Amino acid sequence: MKLGCCYYPEHWPEAMWAEDARRMAAMGLSLVRIGEFAWSRIEPQPGHYDWGWLDRAIATLAAAGLKIILGTPTATPPKWLVDRMPDMVAIDEQGRPRGFGSRRHYCFSHEGYRAECRRIVTALADRYGDHPAIVMWQTDNEYGCHDTVLSFSAAAAAGFRDWLQARYGTVAALNTAWGNVFWSMEYRAFTEVDPPHLTVTEANPAHWLDYRRFASDQVASFNREQVDILRRLSPGKDITHNFMGFFTEFDHHTVGRDIDVATWDSYPLGFLEQFWFSDAEKHAYLRQGHPDIAAFHHDLYRGCSAKESGARWGVMEQQPGPVNWARFNPAPLTGMVALWTLEAAAHGAEFTSYFRWRQAPFAQEQMHAGLLRPDSSEAEAADEVRAAAAVLADIGPQPATQAPAALVFSYEAAWAIGIQPQGASFSYLELVFEAYSALRARGLDVDIVSPDADLAGYAMVLVPTLPIVPEGFAAKLAALTCPVLTGPRSGSKTDSFCIPEGLAPGVLKPLIPLTVTRVESLRDGVTETAEGFAVTRWREDVASELVPELTDAAGRGVVYAHGHIRYCAIWPDRALLRLLVERMAGEAGVPLLDLPEGIRIRRTASHVFAFNYSAEPVWAPQVGEVLAPAGWHIAPR
Amino acid sequence: MKLGCCYYPEHWPEAMWAEDARRMAAMGLSLVRIGEFAWSRIEPQPGHYDWGWLDRAIATLAAAGLKIILGTPTATPPKWLVDRMPDMVAIDEQGRPRGFGSRRHYCFSHEGYRAECRRIVTALADRYGDHPAIVMWQTDNEYGCHDTVLSFSAAAAAGFRDWLQARYGTVAALNTAWGNVFWSMEYRAFTEVDPPHLTVTEANPAHWLDYRRFASDQVASFNREQVDILRRLSPGKDITHNFMGFFTEFDHHTVGRDIDVATWDSYPLGFLEQFWFSDAEKHAYLRQGHPDIAAFHHDLYRGCSAKESGARWGVMEQQPGPVNWARFNPAPLTGMVALWTLEAAAHGAEFTSYFRWRQAPFAQEQMHAGLLRPDSSEAEAADEVRAAAAVLADIGPQPATQAPAALVFSYEAAWAIGIQPQGASFSYLELVFEAYSALRARGLDVDIVSPDADLAGYAMVLVPTLPIVPEGFAAKLAALTCPVLTGPRSGSKTDSFCIPEGLAPGVLKPLIPLTVTRVESLRDGVTETAEGFAVTRWREDVASELVPELTDAAGRGVVYAHGHIRYCAIWPDRALLRLLVERMAGEAGVPLLDLPEGIRIRRTASHVFAFNYSAEPVWAPQVGEVLAPAGWHIAPR
Amino acid sequence: MKLGCCYYPEHWPEAMWAEDARRMAAMGLSLVRIGEFAWSRIEPQPGHYDWGWLDRAIATLAAAGLKIILGTPTATPPKWLVDRMPDMVAIDEQGRPRGFGSRRHYCFSHEGYRAECRRIVTALADRYGDHPAIVMWQTDNEYGCHDTVLSFSAAAAAGFRDWLQARYGTVAALNTAWGNVFWSMEYRAFTEVDPPHLTVTEANPAHWLDYRRFASDQVASFNREQVDILRRLSPGKDITHNFMGFFTEFDHHTVGRDIDVATWDSYPLGFLEQFWFSDAEKHAYLRQGHPDIAAFHHDLYRGCSAKESGARWGVMEQQPGPVNWARFNPAPLTGMVALWTLEAAAHGAEFTSYFRWRQAPFAQEQMHAGLLRPDSSEAEAADEVRAAAAVLADIGPQPATQAPAALVFSYEAAWAIGIQPQGASFSYLELVFEAYSALRARGLDVDIVSPDADLAGYAMVLVPTLPIVPEGFAAKLAALTCPVLTGPRSGSKTDSFCIPEGLAPGVLKPLIPLTVTRVESLRDGVTETAEGFAVTRWREDVASELVPELTDAAGRGVVYAHGHIRYCAIWPDRALLRLLVERMAGEAGVPLLDLPEGIRIRRTASHVFAFNYSAEPVWAPQVGEVLAPAGWHIAPR
Repeated sequence: MKLGCCYYPEHWPEAMWAEDARRMAAMGLSLVRIGEFAWSRIEPQPGHYDWGWLDRAIATLAAAGLKIILGTPTATPPKWLVDRMPDMVAIDEQGRPRGFGSRRHYCFSHEGYRAECRRIVTALADRYGDHPAIVMWQTDNEYGCHDTVLSFSAAAAAGFRDWLQARYGTVAALNTAWGNVFWSMEYRAFTEVDPPHLTVTEANPAHWLDYRRFASDQVASFNREQVDILRRLSPGKDITHNFMGFFTEFDHHTVGRDIDVATWDSYPLGFLEQFWFSDAEKHAYLRQGHPDIAAFHHDLYRGCSAKESGARWGVMEQQPGPVNWARFNPAPLTGMVALWTLEAAAHGAEFTSYFRWRQAPFAQEQMHAGLLRPDSSEAEAADEVRAAAAVLADIGPQPATQAPAALVFSYEAAWAIGIQPQGASFSYLELVFEAYSALRARGLDVDIVSPDADLAGYAMVLVPTLPIVPEGFAAKLAALTCPVLTGPRSGSKTDSFCIPEGLAPGVLKPLIPLTVTRVESLRDGVTETAEGFAVTRWREDVASELVPELTDAAGRGVVYAHGHIRYCAIWPDRALLRLLVERMAGEAGVPLLDLPEGIRIRRTASHVFAFNYSAEPVWAPQVGEVLAPAGWHIAPR
Repeated sequence: MKLGCCYYPEHWPEAMWAEDARRMAAMGLSLVRIGEFAWSRIEPQPGHYDWGWLDRAIATLAAAGLKIILGTPTATPPKWLVDRMPDMVAIDEQGRPRGFGSRRHYCFSHEGYRAECRRIVTALADRYGDHPAIVMWQTDNEYGCHDTVLSFSAAAAAGFRDWLQARYGTVAALNTAWGNVFWSMEYRAFTEVDPPHLTVTEANPAHWLDYRRFASDQVASFNREQVDILRRLSPGKDITHNFMGFFTEFDHHTVGRDIDVATWDSYPLGFLEQFWFSDAEKHAYLRQGHPDIAAFHHDLYRGCSAKESGARWGVMEQQPGPVNWARFNPAPLTGMVALWTLEAAAHGAEFTSYFRWRQAPFAQEQMHAGLLRPDSSEAEAADEVRAAAAVLADIGPQPATQAPAALVFSYEAAWAIGIQPQGASFSYLELVFEAYSALRARGLDVDIVSPDADLAGYAMVLVPTLPIVPEGFAAKLAALTCPVLTGPRSGSKTDSFCIPEGLAPGVLKPLIPLTVTRVESLRDGVTETAEGFAVTRWREDVASELVPELTDAAGRGVVYAHGHIRYCAIWPDRALLRLLVERMAGEAGVPLLDLPEGIRIRRTASHVFAFNYSAEPVWAPQVGEVLAPAGWHIAPR
Repeated sequence: MKLGCCYYPEHWPEAMWAEDARRMAAMGLSLVRIGEFAWSRIEPQPGHYDWGWLDRAIATLAAAGLKIILGTPTATPPKWLVDRMPDMVAIDEQGRPRGFGSRRHYCFSHEGYRAECRRIVTALADRYGDHPAIVMWQTDNEYGCHDTVLSFSAAAAAGFRDWLQARYGTVAALNTAWGNVFWSMEYRAFTEVDPPHLTVTEANPAHWLDYRRFASDQVASFNREQVDILRRLSPGKDITHNFMGFFTEFDHHTVGRDIDVATWDSYPLGFLEQFWFSDAEKHAYLRQGHPDIAAFHHDLYRGCSAKESGARWGVMEQQPGPVNWARFNPAPLTGMVALWTLEAAAHGAEFTSYFRWRQAPFAQEQMHAGLLRPDSSEAEAADEVRAAAAVLADIGPQPATQAPAALVFSYEAAWAIGIQPQGASFSYLELVFEAYSALRARGLDVDIVSPDADLAGYAMVLVPTLPIVPEGFAAKLAALTCPVLTGPRSGSKTDSFCIPEGLAPGVLKPLIPLTVTRVESLRDGVTETAEGFAVTRWREDVASELVPELTDAAGRGVVYAHGHIRYCAIWPDRALLRLLVERMAGEAGVPLLDLPEGIRIRRTASHVFAFNYSAEPVWAPQVGEVLAPAGWHIAPR
């Protein structure tokens, strides 16, 4: 695995560049990402390009032996561009234009802005498409960051109407699909349809689902326009986009199909603080991050990369110290930056790039650590980078192999649950993460895959939930022989966000003969104990001739099995997930480990990696030694 | 008591109607409400009516022996209507137009929309006014739902100015009434007055109170326009409107005077989850609802019905299973749907209608249970409906009789307290509900009545609070001989939201010689213990020559008595309410029961009903048996 | 110290004025503030003044021997004025115009409104400038109340651009200062710059800081326009403005330099409820207020008054009973109004004026107590005012003398921390207040001073934090010989909100040889114990050749000392503050007391005051007696 960093030559005096490049190489870095926010320097006046500085920056970095990832600057259109087409900004859900003064102030649906993006990407690719030091292009930056996938602008409304027309053909078909007869919501023409915001009470969930699909498609087509230009003008170079953490606003599988290498931006401490983890977890993993946060995304984005590319992926931005954007921003425990780096290698990353080379002393991210401090002294992470580089050189390439467990992840499922949670605590991401964590806690490697992935060869398949089952998916599950677990709400909606004709689990019924007759959600604090696990958050009543495999204390079925298929009719707590993993592994003949708290194991083709995410030393019998806090152990397999 | 259901023939293939009707009748239902959201089907294009389907639906239902409640569709104007007069939508308090895409997207003050409503109601009444199967009309649906009473549109501002002109005559009179000299808020003309929103800090409470009165009057006049048309074109048929739970945004007593039968929509589990109940209560009554939620509204809306109609009322929508709109949506405990039905009978309902016949598989309410599931199989409630129908047939009509206790309820009081809480925890609805609950916990039946109700014949009268005492009310209390309790803040405001000249309790002073010299509100967690009760939330300092009946630990008066009148100078906690109920009952010679937790008793002319709202079996000595969870016991009186 | 009250003759029948004046004098009051909200009575129609009533009110008050503070009415422009220039209202951060109907509905940057203010102030000063009863003018009322310093109007945007032009000269200089190359935020002209609101994510902190500086300057220049008129037309009369509590939205030191007497509005119970105090503190001091709330502001605003005026200050509004604006509004403990009055005297106030004479029975503040009730009977505070007046007469004038401890307070520091907290719990006001409280708890008197104050003569100087160190400040600290404590984040930013070149503490490095190499913020609940204190909220890693004076449990430096300078590298908890106060006092040879909980001591030139803020009697060995709840003890020094 290669190492790299994110660098902004435009932020520093030109006289510093050569020494920066030299030190990068000396630290063990071989990649450098540049350019992705530099529009105002590339084109300081409309139509007047200034290539000189960028030519020299690229030349200087290349001269030090660094390979370059060049970003397109479309996440930060300059003020003159916004002033020329003020309606290019997104409109937020409250109806307000989103102003200039930070970044991502554009609407994905605005044709004028798209033309400007094509122009600047063409100009960049024209100039650098065949530069030998450039090995990869990054399109834009973190699509969707700061809640920017959805826009409610006139451009978005117009785009949505076209999208609906293409999908439904006639407005009558749309009315039927959405059930618009309900509350007299029927339209007489596509031009009558608005985005689903600012309605008096909730809009039709089918309306929302199509708006989310449309918005996701807009991101994909926006990206594809850049990809098409780059493919044409910079043939043979890789293309990537840097995805984010715990983020489901657009379908990353779709965007991933258009690029060569899926990358993501890994900030374990910020994610721990900002997401659903309990206070106890936030305290226990304060300076390390929960042991599954980074791994979950490694395995997710490996699965978002185009099949043809061989599931190529990497970490484009790796947290090297405290960040600036969470409510609280602790410093990583000594050793964690190296540990995070090696965890990426253990999951098959092509590279890990630290964000950023040197901490900026100005503007919004001045409190975001880098590998260097603003005064160019080395920050705490620098030594860990060198240590990681040495280990990586020692162990050589670590391509990922197929894992024993597949976890099926669906962006559409996240939207469906989010649009209609039915119980405020039913979170799609949390459910999938808990299933992932249950597998990892027993020492299993996991592939997180799209519903349209090939599931052959797995020892077990988990579908935490899949409300809308895509065409062909049920048949694919039926054709498997390994144990398959499907979670609550699977098959509970049609493609048009309706309850299926024979009730849930809909098209999954041929796989497991049961019917969900009623569902209930349970408020926080309601816990109904069964043997060895508890019913919380969600419970389904099931009618079936099957004898349940597990029941609650009142004798109601909780888990049903039929052939190789299981259906879980409640929100599975950790104890139940553990039990189910044990049963499936037993059936599949997959050996399990019982890892101590904070310990995780991951295997590549050649090596076994063990990591200690705890802040204390931990005796790990599986590796036969005490792992220090932030400690690791790597052994040939 | 009759049973019925809410049905949407326009949601289902015509071929299903006859079988649906047959099954309704077979289940014991004799009423069916239809039509209230069907504008887009009745008038699919502007001015082009399609009566055929509705003619046939009515005929089909009637053929099965069902009687029909026909709703006017004015809660759901179609998109073409909104597009023709875009300013018909309400403007929310933040100044944003409330969009199309759900329901209730209209401003009560918009004259153009009112004309459209008169047109569609006239057309409906013209066609069906004398149809023999139609026994009742429902105007619109749930006025005010989704926070729609208040609008801040140009139409509302104009209407408000006219309303003020009519009320005050001159702007000088308005300035004096409101005290506009304060902060130079004086107006020179009615045209200078705006709605009281988006002010820099709170607007004048007198301004708010008049805006709330105006908005309430707009609801009443909007309703009256429909009533007038229906009276003219459908003489002899009953008219109703379906009110909601824990909802005080308009004066239901006023609207109730214009209709024949007050109905309401009863969702005990959703109300428990969404309102102020403690976590302990929400857990204890998770699947039953608090024992007083439904009863409170039964007794409230019985009192909202026009006197001349003999206090006719019913339940238009009865929760039959999990709903979709609360944060968490549990399923009713088995037996509760029958229990809720019989509780309505015990309070004198003419009918209970379940919402809805069949769960819709599409649109916003697809997760709202019905009597049938979307696949037409019977849902859990169906058996309970049949059981309740059998009991109802057995016991016969159960008209309500005058209760021993009267509880005075004022919508204006709710507005006054809400506009100026003075302590964040002083909730009008909670105070009244707690007083009601204290009476019911001791086995007393209660009439919840308007301040202008006749109070003769009651054994005790409770006025939890009445900041603005209407003309004649004090004299009416004075003329009583039974014990009367008036709560804190009673008489503390004039009709113009000012402190009365001689201080609180203002016009009540002749009844009880005391003066409130100072008030204080106490933050959550502050509890000052007296003997057998506690001072929390609110305390008044009282100057009086009376010796207090009860004092706090520091010897300050808490309850004062003078003749048959008592005044309580603090927020009464449950212990104090219990004590006061005991004293008044003792004085009135009314026997009390000491009901176990979860047990409630209610009497009609002929029967005594006992209900167990607990999730456990409870030994109820008052009925001489153990009541099962959700169990009931009905005996001749 | 004189006593006074706030009075609104326009609220009461003219026939009541003389008796009111007589009773004021009889109660011991000699000052009365009037007029500050009376624009609609002074100018009921545009251009038509009505002076008669105000002439007579002034004459009547003067006839009773009262001296008058006359307010300019610019906080409450009448409706006719707003209707004539609707764009004079401020635009809030959400982009909404702030409406008429309360007060402060103006934008400080609107030139048209400024002209109107000059006109009305000129008219007032023309008429009353030389009236012998008028001893003081108050400009406007509570600048910034209800979040009104910041406006995002077109007028504000235009003013901001001019301000930037004046500050930076060229837009290139602005781009460099702000670091606008980051995210392509560079401008080509000042006209391209907008206010920093409604950006997609946070705006540049340098952008925000300059917007706050600009907005603060607008308040100062708005005030200065009135001051200039009053100086010209009412020579020799004092000018004041009434500041608020816990309020830092504009630089009060700057405004204070333009007036003669700094006054503030003291509401200890409301402030306790509304600010960061713990539940335990809110309960313990429910009816007394935290013992340092009023004292903190007395010492702060004494330091805001112009040096040339001899630090003249007073309390313009003193809470006399329950207020109406906090979430909960308890009544003061008996004795507290007198105690608060004497505490003001102990800090050197020229006068304390109660808000208000008589409780208004109408409009927004009808639940705000006065010295009289609405019915003109005496409220609880009246006796306490008389008692305080007697004590004050007895002890004579009590000018403040220089305190042993100086606490450096910077409004710019409050803005900088607020713009970029980096940890959600890092509050500037709380940090300064805790340092103040630590000094007071050990019996020390404190001067709270501006960074540009003369620090000579103090026995110790505390700088809780000062991210941006003003020109000359470091040299001033260096020149001292007394112990100096500088807190975390001091020197961490340049004047342009950048990290200084050699890292924090920047320009303070010559004073204490250390470098802050990394900072971390810690979430609520994270507590890392050291010996005798704890690390919470904030920790800095320090590189230094100094041996730390105090370390944490892991041996990392927490406090460093070098000569007379100390640097504290963590958020200091109460235990650490206590320890540091002890060390500095020891070094300075200043004796400390160990005051019981709730007891505070304050010295003037001639007397020592002791106060008991506890709700219980407390044995105070320092005064040799038990102080009753709300009790005090005053002895010659």
